[in-house]
Amino acid sequence: MAQGSAAPVVRLVLQQCLRAKLQVKPADEQQGAQWVQVERGMVVYVCFLKGASEELVPKIVSSVLNLRLCESDSGALVSVLDLPGSVLVVPQATLGGKVKGKSVQYHNNIQKEMGLRLYHAFVAQCEAELSKAAGPGLGVLVQHGTYGNRQVLELDTNGPFTHLLEF
Amino acid sequence: MAQGSAAPVVRLVLQQCLRAKLQVKPADEQQGAQWVQVERGMVVYVCFLKGASEELVPKIVSSVLNLRLCESDSGALVSVLDLPGSVLVVPQATLGGKVKGKSVQYHNNIQKEMGLRLYHAFVAQCEAELSKAAGPGLGVLVQHGTYGNRQVLELDTNGPFTHLLEF
Repeated sequence: MAQGSAAPVVRLVLQQCLRAKLQVKPADEQQGAQWVQVERGMVVYVCFLKGASEELVPKIVSSVLNLRLCESDSGALVSVLDLPGSVLVVPQATLGGKVKGKSVQYHNNIQKEMGLRLYHAFVAQCEAELSKAAGPGLGVLVQHGTYGNRQVLELDTNGPFTHLLEF
Repeated sequence: MAQGSAAPVVRLVLQQCLRAKLQVKPADEQQGAQWVQVERGMVVYVCFLKGASEELVPKIVSSVLNLRLCESDSGALVSVLDLPGSVLVVPQATLGGKVKGKSVQYHNNIQKEMGLRLYHAFVAQCEAELSKAAGPGLGVLVQHGTYGNRQVLELDTNGPFTHLLEF
C-alpha cells in the first residue's frame, strides 16, 4: 500500500482482529502486568521515521480509519469507523529497520522524544475520530501500547488481512 | 526494512511469536476446521508482486532465516535458524495493496498460478534450510497456510517485533 514516495516518514502495518490484548505495563514487585484489550476491529502498528511531523498526523489517522479494510457481517469491506470497530495502536519501532548484513539498523527512526509526541497525537486523534463516528454505548474504543515498552501482544483473527501503509 | 528498490516484487512482514495457530482448511459438512501450529519462532506473511521470479526465492529464504530478528533466552538477537525456532508461513495477498481513494487495489499482485508456484518454492526452501540447520529432534518445523484461503490466525507473542522486508 506504499504511496510511491521514495523515503517514507511514517510506516504502518494494519491487521484485522476479532480480539487483541496488549501489555501496557510489565509486572513488578507491587503488582502483576497490566493489559488493555479490544474486541473486533483493527490493530495498527506504527513507526515514525526521520522527517515525520505533526501536520501529517490527521492525514494518516483519516486513512487508517476510513480505508475500507474491515469485513462487515455481510462480507462487504467497510472502514473501521463504519463497522464500527475498535482500534489497538501498537508503537513498533522495528518497522523502521533497514537490513545491513545479517543485522537490522534503525538509523532512520525518528528521535525518541519527537516519536513519543507524534505517537500521542496519533492516538488522541484516533480517539477523537472514533468517538465522534461511533458515539457512546457501542462499546468500540481506542486502546494503545506504552511507547518505548516491549509490546507483548495476543491476537485472534478471522484473517489478519495484513496491509502496509506508508506516508 | 526496504532495500531501496523503487518497485518491490516481493513483500514480507515478519513477526516473532511464542505460539501461532493457523487454519489450513475451513470446516465443512464432513469435519471441523483443520489447523497447524508452531511454538516459539517467526510468522512470515508473504506476498508476491508482478515481476517476482523463482530465482529470487533462495535469496529471500536466506534473508528471512538468517537475519538476527529473534530474541534468544539471553536477550541477544539471533536468527530463527540459530534460535532454533519454527516458522509459520502465511500467504497474504493484501500486502500487495495500493490505496485508491478509500479502497485498496491489487493490480500489482502476481497472477495467481505463478504466485502459488513461488509460494510453494518459498515454503519448500524454508523447510529444507531449517531441517538442515536444526536437525531432527529439536521440535522446530515449518508450517504454512493454504494459498488462496482465508488465513484465520491466532498469535501469541512476547513482542511481535514487526519487520518489513522487500525485494
